[in-house]
Amino acid sequence: MITSTANAQVKELMRLMKKSRARDEAGVFLAEGPRMTEELAADPAWRENIRKVYLSEDYAAKAKDRWTSFQTEILSDAVFAHVSGTKTPQGVLAVVQRPEYGMEDILGHGGGRAHILVLDNLQDPGNLGTIFRTAEAAGATGILLSADCVDVYNPKVVRSTMGAVLRMPFQYVEDLPGAIGELKQNGIWIYAAHLAGEKAYDEEDYTSGCAFLIGNEGNGLRDEVAACADRRILIPMQGSAESLNAAVAAAVLMFEAARQRRR
Amino acid sequence: MITSTANAQVKELMRLMKKSRARDEAGVFLAEGPRMTEELAADPAWRENIRKVYLSEDYAAKAKDRWTSFQTEILSDAVFAHVSGTKTPQGVLAVVQRPEYGMEDILGHGGGRAHILVLDNLQDPGNLGTIFRTAEAAGATGILLSADCVDVYNPKVVRSTMGAVLRMPFQYVEDLPGAIGELKQNGIWIYAAHLAGEKAYDEEDYTSGCAFLIGNEGNGLRDEVAACADRRILIPMQGSAESLNAAVAAAVLMFEAARQRRR
Repeated sequence: MITSTANAQVKELMRLMKKSRARDEAGVFLAEGPRMTEELAADPAWRENIRKVYLSEDYAAKAKDRWTSFQTEILSDAVFAHVSGTKTPQGVLAVVQRPEYGMEDILGHGGGRAHILVLDNLQDPGNLGTIFRTAEAAGATGILLSADCVDVYNPKVVRSTMGAVLRMPFQYVEDLPGAIGELKQNGIWIYAAHLAGEKAYDEEDYTSGCAFLIGNEGNGLRDEVAACADRRILIPMQGSAESLNAAVAAAVLMFEAARQRRR
Repeated sequence: MITSTANAQVKELMRLMKKSRARDEAGVFLAEGPRMTEELAADPAWRENIRKVYLSEDYAAKAKDRWTSFQTEILSDAVFAHVSGTKTPQGVLAVVQRPEYGMEDILGHGGGRAHILVLDNLQDPGNLGTIFRTAEAAGATGILLSADCVDVYNPKVVRSTMGAVLRMPFQYVEDLPGAIGELKQNGIWIYAAHLAGEKAYDEEDYTSGCAFLIGNEGNGLRDEVAACADRRILIPMQGSAESLNAAVAAAVLMFEAARQRRR
């Protein structure tokens, strides 16, 4: 059992918890809590991605047997609390190798029913977590993100996706207009949520392959990204509201697509 | 100019910033930043509710003239930064007397087009701010909150409403089932977003007076509140998602009502 925060493994774990670059370089993310780690362990595809599982002394006393087929390390409760990203640590934390998704995954392996969200420079971790969670519920097939979006493997985002980050294919891309062009070549119709939209969002048909472009919280879509859209659509707003929260705008559009597809 | 954080006014301001009870007792809230304070000053109804305006030395040098008809106090930049609830203080902070809304305001003065959100034990400040902002955009007429919901006058919530807290009538009530009963007496149809809903949310008609019940982030609606609903409605979800974020669920329902009412 590791009892010191000066331990080399503990220091490395802290780096992975805090630094996006450390996670990128190692090609991993951290999954914390029994719920998410057990979902990973129960899924044959994810199972082999689990590199190491850290257990608190307290949790290990109860649940060590569940993790016998994995490489584990026990931390004293104090050390576990030190590395944990949560206020009330639940005693289990896995270092997990990232999956690699391709355009085929984003398109939902077929394309005709593709339902894609494209995020341009989204910055708020809470918004990104909510968007992943909402996208899964609305039946989106995948998410494309510009390289300067907030890191979905930020432990706070991972938690706030409520597990959707494990199930929703996604890809960060350097050249977002280029990637949108690839969607178009696959027959996907591109809609930009835009304050200067011509038609209300519910006047378009989303029953075939479609993608929604959502911009930065403060500045909206960059011009070169908005220019990729086949249509600019408007979410009509009343009162003095000038815009919607990015996660709310994404939710309204994705659930409209889901509503049309149920009919 | 006040140059010490030990000053009695500064201490009182800190109490109002940090303590919900201090704000309740004084019957005020804090509005920070040029945007929100200027909106208050420009509105005849709000104008007289402004009790005092605190300016940073830096901001006062540029914009003091705007505030000549109000009671003002200048704080050194360091003291202003100390009291500010934001990381990058913008130099203006108003202490504002709370408005008093009645059921007539919530009903939108007529009732036939009432579009009401009822929040039961909502706890997340970010969710509440987003809900106010979304409710205004979707054309809701008012919001009812159980007394144990998070404080909308929490400075973080005030900011995240993007001004909607100044424009959206709302009321905290001790007896939420009783208040819902009052809505019913006014001919409002009550819908509970519920995982055990019978019909999909888009199969109901929201073109006459309606109210949506939204529950706590972790536990949903309390049984005694859910029991007040005329109908339980379901937001159909795909994948392994078990629930939606409360603000997202509210957004999907309110924008469906807005969509139906536009037709």
